[in-house]
Amino acid sequence: MRTIRVVQYGLGPIGLGVARILLDRPAFQLVGAVDVAPEKQGRDLGELLDTHPLGVLVTPDPQVAREADVVVHATQSRLAQVEPQLLELVACGADVVSTCEELSYPWFHHARSARRIHEVAQEAGVTVTGLGINPGFAMDLLPLLLTAPCRHLRRLVVERRVDVRTRRPPLQQKVGVGLTEEEFHAGVAAGLVGHVGLPESVAMIAAALGWTLDAITDEVRPVLRGGRVEGLRQEARGVVEGEERIRLDLTMAVDLEDPVDRVRVEGDPSFVAEIPGGLHGDVATCAIVANALPLVREAPPGLRTVLDLPPLRYSG
Amino acid sequence: MRTIRVVQYGLGPIGLGVARILLDRPAFQLVGAVDVAPEKQGRDLGELLDTHPLGVLVTPDPQVAREADVVVHATQSRLAQVEPQLLELVACGADVVSTCEELSYPWFHHARSARRIHEVAQEAGVTVTGLGINPGFAMDLLPLLLTAPCRHLRRLVVERRVDVRTRRPPLQQKVGVGLTEEEFHAGVAAGLVGHVGLPESVAMIAAALGWTLDAITDEVRPVLRGGRVEGLRQEARGVVEGEERIRLDLTMAVDLEDPVDRVRVEGDPSFVAEIPGGLHGDVATCAIVANALPLVREAPPGLRTVLDLPPLRYSG
Repeated sequence: MRTIRVVQYGLGPIGLGVARILLDRPAFQLVGAVDVAPEKQGRDLGELLDTHPLGVLVTPDPQVAREADVVVHATQSRLAQVEPQLLELVACGADVVSTCEELSYPWFHHARSARRIHEVAQEAGVTVTGLGINPGFAMDLLPLLLTAPCRHLRRLVVERRVDVRTRRPPLQQKVGVGLTEEEFHAGVAAGLVGHVGLPESVAMIAAALGWTLDAITDEVRPVLRGGRVEGLRQEARGVVEGEERIRLDLTMAVDLEDPVDRVRVEGDPSFVAEIPGGLHGDVATCAIVANALPLVREAPPGLRTVLDLPPLRYSG
Repeated sequence: MRTIRVVQYGLGPIGLGVARILLDRPAFQLVGAVDVAPEKQGRDLGELLDTHPLGVLVTPDPQVAREADVVVHATQSRLAQVEPQLLELVACGADVVSTCEELSYPWFHHARSARRIHEVAQEAGVTVTGLGINPGFAMDLLPLLLTAPCRHLRRLVVERRVDVRTRRPPLQQKVGVGLTEEEFHAGVAAGLVGHVGLPESVAMIAAALGWTLDAITDEVRPVLRGGRVEGLRQEARGVVEGEERIRLDLTMAVDLEDPVDRVRVEGDPSFVAEIPGGLHGDVATCAIVANALPLVREAPPGLRTVLDLPPLRYSG
């Protein structure tokens, strides 16, 4: 089997985390590294990974993607920010997987972008896929699979409680840790505070179940302790014919008790599935991206979501 | 959307359970019912389902499948028993889904049959797919999906504990309820007692993970109370390079305490996922078959497994 040539685009904690996994897997070869940060330019990727020199020097030029079978893209959360980056990579003829949260299921909120990316990718004969733990797994794909044993399904409720104490600083900032209540609300209004992706998960679930949504709501409020923000609680709802059929309830805070991933399937039968302690988001996102690469390579060209791929699984 | 025309082949508890679900779903139309039992011949399917007459009379002739888009096949557990039935249905030009346990992943233990069915189905332009809760979901597909967040995977351990008190009598017989210990062992030797499908689940898991198996073991022993058999405990193991990497541990007994479906993922990270109370096997098998029909209809022709389909989910 020929090795799969990978370019890593975006060398923050997630991008480096994926690269570190791929380094250990003989099926993959890292052939390029892209980042815009001036202090990373010209450095060997091995140095950034705290390992031996790899002969791969960081460049700001995405055109290095011409050397790749697949580009792992890990930069920003909003599709409007990353669409030009994705289109340039597609034009290089490489499959693209991205941790951009809004790319996980862009067909509802960003249908025009989605169609554009889909068409360009089809023409180029490559796939573009948004992947990650949330959105992409814990609050959409896994709950969806858990509905398969149901004769009837009334409502799907997913609860994810994450202790961000051990998580990367950018994530702690994103959930507002250390802010005052006013700063928190200002941050939410400015789009700096809050988890991106819950509405995408609601849209993905509804599409997979064949439900037509009246509306998706997405609300954020602070988790407070002694007047200081310790994190956030964010709830998204999918409403079908006036009824709440999907509820995603995400709490991310410092020193949160009882971290868990919990899915409540309400129907016939009703049951609860849970992962006590919960899935570690950063580790899981990196792993899901690495594990999905063989499936993405085999998928038909176009914009893909985890609904279009065979079931994700470990592929070390 | 045109309704999907369904023939129900096999009118035992599972076959009727699937038919009952499909009756409630406007996307489907029941157009035929096949069973060999003399006492069912000529009766209206609605009568067997305790509902209004459906104008569908039970026949022993599988050629009624010519009227169908898809046949739901629910007769026996062994591939050798059902292969002629499946091939006849394929020749009728219908997609086939079957609850035959050995069809869930026949590529390891029955590779020649699998290839034959695959080729005939491809030529006929139809799909043939084995589906159910176990094998097909609780001890293979769901555990596999749960390995996606792993950077490394050492071992996958799946435990399923089923209280058969509320389950159909044929299932209670299959797990040996009421036998003496000698009768139990004689029943196992004769192939009358024991769950069929654990080795198929091990083979499916290994194939999906890209692991080459040295061997699969499958052991059955009775669960005893006061000298009488109350059920069975069956363990299957997948050995890779001399090491146990997959263990499936199934207990099915009357009045079993703590019924559960539990997956232990051992790797980086390690975690446990569980469904307290467990999934009800008969209900879940019927639901999975009904829910998978739209996905099976869209899949490329050939012998398919749940690994080839997009993620299963409710599709009412």
